[in-house]
Amino acid sequence: MRMGELAGAAGLPVATIKYYLREGLLPPGRRTAPNQAAYDESHLRRLRLIRSLRDAGGLGIEQIRRIVQAMDDGVRPWDVVGEVTDAIGAGPSAGRRDSEWQAAAAEVDAFLADRGLPHRAESPARRRLIDALIALRGALGPGVSAESLGWYADAMEPLARQEVMATKALSTRQGPGWDAHTGMGEPGEAPDLSLTLEAIVYGTLLFEPVILAMRRLWHERFAEEERLGEG
Amino acid sequence: MRMGELAGAAGLPVATIKYYLREGLLPPGRRTAPNQAAYDESHLRRLRLIRSLRDAGGLGIEQIRRIVQAMDDGVRPWDVVGEVTDAIGAGPSAGRRDSEWQAAAAEVDAFLADRGLPHRAESPARRRLIDALIALRGALGPGVSAESLGWYADAMEPLARQEVMATKALSTRQGPGWDAHTGMGEPGEAPDLSLTLEAIVYGTLLFEPVILAMRRLWHERFAEEERLGEG
Repeated sequence: MRMGELAGAAGLPVATIKYYLREGLLPPGRRTAPNQAAYDESHLRRLRLIRSLRDAGGLGIEQIRRIVQAMDDGVRPWDVVGEVTDAIGAGPSAGRRDSEWQAAAAEVDAFLADRGLPHRAESPARRRLIDALIALRGALGPGVSAESLGWYADAMEPLARQEVMATKALSTRQGPGWDAHTGMGEPGEAPDLSLTLEAIVYGTLLFEPVILAMRRLWHERFAEEERLGEG
Repeated sequence: MRMGELAGAAGLPVATIKYYLREGLLPPGRRTAPNQAAYDESHLRRLRLIRSLRDAGGLGIEQIRRIVQAMDDGVRPWDVVGEVTDAIGAGPSAGRRDSEWQAAAAEVDAFLADRGLPHRAESPARRRLIDALIALRGALGPGVSAESLGWYADAMEPLARQEVMATKALSTRQGPGWDAHTGMGEPGEAPDLSLTLEAIVYGTLLFEPVILAMRRLWHERFAEEERLGEG
């Protein structure tokens, strides 16, 4: 397809696509005339990925460049999961580094190490746990320990495992009619890293409100049971 | 204590406390002189609750009034869980009501009914599920069904049950040295609704980033296992 058709299919202005070409985020098309090039499905998928990283993930151009370059260099999705999830929707951090923060960080790291969970210093998820622990102590009292995070670690383990397995199925079974969520469909040829990464970005972000909504609905259900039990 | 001391202890300006008195959110103090009143611990706890509803929960003055009036009327915390969690941090809704939305709403309601989960039309959690289902279909394909939300319902059930049980323990065991999170401490006299509601507000909100961070850390851990397994 021509540039204009690609732009229409991707839902992006031609100027944006030219910018991505200049920046090396999108590989050049196949030259068909001195001033014309043809683009195919792989270009469209790359644009969809860039858009999902940009719009859903909130990533900047430099972060997107690192990820697509890693893909062009042939890394597997598992190699960039850390980088992608670090980058997307990390949210603001309190940014404190005082002694209370350092103490909470040491506790959280010990807890994560004990559970076999990663605790890279630069991980936004780790930073968010530390911020939350301090906020919880301020609100509910100093008795909130890193160990009391254990309930939450336990609850998320089987869910995260299922999600990673589904994504793995995605990277090995992408034939025609393949469905990204159910993993149903015909086995494909070579796995498509764009699709896998797109599923990681969207899956990570779009299921977050689902998780929080389910928790609140169960709260309401169990509170209702208590109410009836007491009444 | 005097008004000035109460303000200092609550971390609020005197003008704000006078406003809450005028609005009926805070019961009047015990009159000690024509132009002076004494306030006690119950006033301080009420102010902490109002502050947590306002700052952490983002509630407006009318929502806060309904909740504290319900408390003054002697309702139990379980009666207002729905109202409180509806009101706090519900986030924006896509606000759509077109036929795609109606269809997704019907699917989500059938799913929730099947699971024994509440599905009040005005519940923001339900609305968020519907919005998420539509977004997931846009991103991952039309094969995403309401049933695929089941993983998320399953994962949150035991966690939410533990949380409600801990809050129940809180409403019956609030003695000196009592710890809001562990439920440890001496049994108290009458349960303090302010404390229980404060715990519901803070617990609902402050553990949300913990839950999302744990999920991402498990993703990273399982992705690393896949990476090593393939390598």
